[in-house]
Amino acid sequence: MIVTGGTIDKVHDPASEGLAFSPDGATHLPEMLRIGRCHFPVVEKLMLKDSLYFDDADRAAIAEAVRAAPEPAIVLTHGTGTMGQTARHLAATLPDTDKCVVLTGAMRPFSLYASDGEFNLGGAVLAAQILAPGIWGVMNGRVFPADRLDKNVDQGRFDL
Amino acid sequence: MIVTGGTIDKVHDPASEGLAFSPDGATHLPEMLRIGRCHFPVVEKLMLKDSLYFDDADRAAIAEAVRAAPEPAIVLTHGTGTMGQTARHLAATLPDTDKCVVLTGAMRPFSLYASDGEFNLGGAVLAAQILAPGIWGVMNGRVFPADRLDKNVDQGRFDL
Amino acid sequence: MIVTGGTIDKVHDPASEGLAFSPDGATHLPEMLRIGRCHFPVVEKLMLKDSLYFDDADRAAIAEAVRAAPEPAIVLTHGTGTMGQTARHLAATLPDTDKCVVLTGAMRPFSLYASDGEFNLGGAVLAAQILAPGIWGVMNGRVFPADRLDKNVDQGRFDL
Amino acid sequence: MIVTGGTIDKVHDPASEGLAFSPDGATHLPEMLRIGRCHFPVVEKLMLKDSLYFDDADRAAIAEAVRAAPEPAIVLTHGTGTMGQTARHLAATLPDTDKCVVLTGAMRPFSLYASDGEFNLGGAVLAAQILAPGIWGVMNGRVFPADRLDKNVDQGRFDL
Repeated sequence: MIVTGGTIDKVHDPASEGLAFSPDGATHLPEMLRIGRCHFPVVEKLMLKDSLYFDDADRAAIAEAVRAAPEPAIVLTHGTGTMGQTARHLAATLPDTDKCVVLTGAMRPFSLYASDGEFNLGGAVLAAQILAPGIWGVMNGRVFPADRLDKNVDQGRFDL
Repeated sequence: MIVTGGTIDKVHDPASEGLAFSPDGATHLPEMLRIGRCHFPVVEKLMLKDSLYFDDADRAAIAEAVRAAPEPAIVLTHGTGTMGQTARHLAATLPDTDKCVVLTGAMRPFSLYASDGEFNLGGAVLAAQILAPGIWGVMNGRVFPADRLDKNVDQGRFDL
Repeated sequence: MIVTGGTIDKVHDPASEGLAFSPDGATHLPEMLRIGRCHFPVVEKLMLKDSLYFDDADRAAIAEAVRAAPEPAIVLTHGTGTMGQTARHLAATLPDTDKCVVLTGAMRPFSLYASDGEFNLGGAVLAAQILAPGIWGVMNGRVFPADRLDKNVDQGRFDL
Repeated sequence: MIVTGGTIDKVHDPASEGLAFSPDGATHLPEMLRIGRCHFPVVEKLMLKDSLYFDDADRAAIAEAVRAAPEPAIVLTHGTGTMGQTARHLAATLPDTDKCVVLTGAMRPFSLYASDGEFNLGGAVLAAQILAPGIWGVMNGRVFPADRLDKNVDQGRFDL
């Protein structure tokens, strides 16, 4: 599991009354897996960024982390804003990968009650083990190939 | 999605200080799907029972509900106590089903904070769409064929 | 109980990734009281505003609502940004009130897990019943007279 | 703040599907105070017991802890089952105490979502600072003198 940030990992910041990453740079993914009683994924925090601010160097770093990971099944947590772009970048950069890479994230932070993060993460962990090699997205109960992975802003979810 | 009860649907009962189903007979599955921002499953409440008390008639009713459902992908929520038995009963009763049936549930009720229910449900919804026809279990990040679906009581989770 | 808005009543807005009031204009106070199993307060929603944007007309409306309320004990939910200013405005406008008016709110919205809202509300409801008539604030376990009610921005709480 | 156990401190026990205290003997009160952003109480864990099983020795130990505490304002967390009995025992044992002792607890454990624990604790912390010396109970928005502190089992709350 490779962590890149995104809403799933944000927390409420009382000072700005908005969302931000934890000042201590921590990711919530280990706690989310613990709650899901799912003990086997290895979590690697690559960065903690809002995907709206991802640049070419960030996407190159993600592709390199995917390439370097020893596991055949990879869940990549990612902001929803440019999840589709990163998926297509990975599909273009790693066209013959023999790994199953599943991007996921959340519309609402895990740290807030009633987040879709656990539901999405549970789906992504499953999908990474049973889908064919390639680049996929799993959000809100659906599997998306990289070229069809895009947020439906009006509905506040990813949908076909 | 066919609801049969189990821990995932239990609530805290202040009178007994234990867990019970809601006095109004309601299931939490629609709310769980709403939190997961997953709008497409059709939820059918078949019963709300603790699976430790399932008898042959209950399992026959579950098999009939699976047979009668028009959808090719079915998530069946079920207590963890005898989830494996029901899966094996379904596998024996419906050996040639062309449906993908995924049993899931939770070790900790959804109505309590930090339940594994959302994680499991997200996995089950995904798995029902991509696994081959047959009877499966999805719990705690793993897919189990019916004959290997059993709770690890010591670890408090389902595991290989 | 008179509701004026503030952080206590805000929700996560997925579109802006910030905090806002519910699009349907609802207040969370009735649900908060239900969770506290506190059935006797009458809740009146006067407005739902961020107190940083309160103007003279808003404060006049609050003073009038306090004056018009038939109850001798009033809890006034309010944003933390200018809670002290409103308290001092009420103390100046209603110097001889025979009501006990307690301002309260939250540093973190009730709709997010781990809010201080329930703790503060529980304190305010108690204080309104046992303090002397006048204008008070109750936040984070402390009672403040109107002239000493101010947020400690550095510590993220109200304190002496 | 003296901790004696009770529902407020119980957690879900997946093995029994009921409520129990944490196997590590921890109390949730420090976390509850942190969520309430209330930093000044000193927490002393005296015991972690269900008050239905309190005996004379337990109540003598509580009275002694109250007597020995250096603070003038004491919040005592206690199970709801015999909260009134302990309050009356303390009132009889410490008739001339110059301390303000407030018993509180919860109908629903803090560790479960939507507990009344934070609301009750916020009220108790306030009341202990402003009520007269003596033995009081604070639950669900009300102050009760020791001789009128009793759970309303039908309504699932403490009430007048």
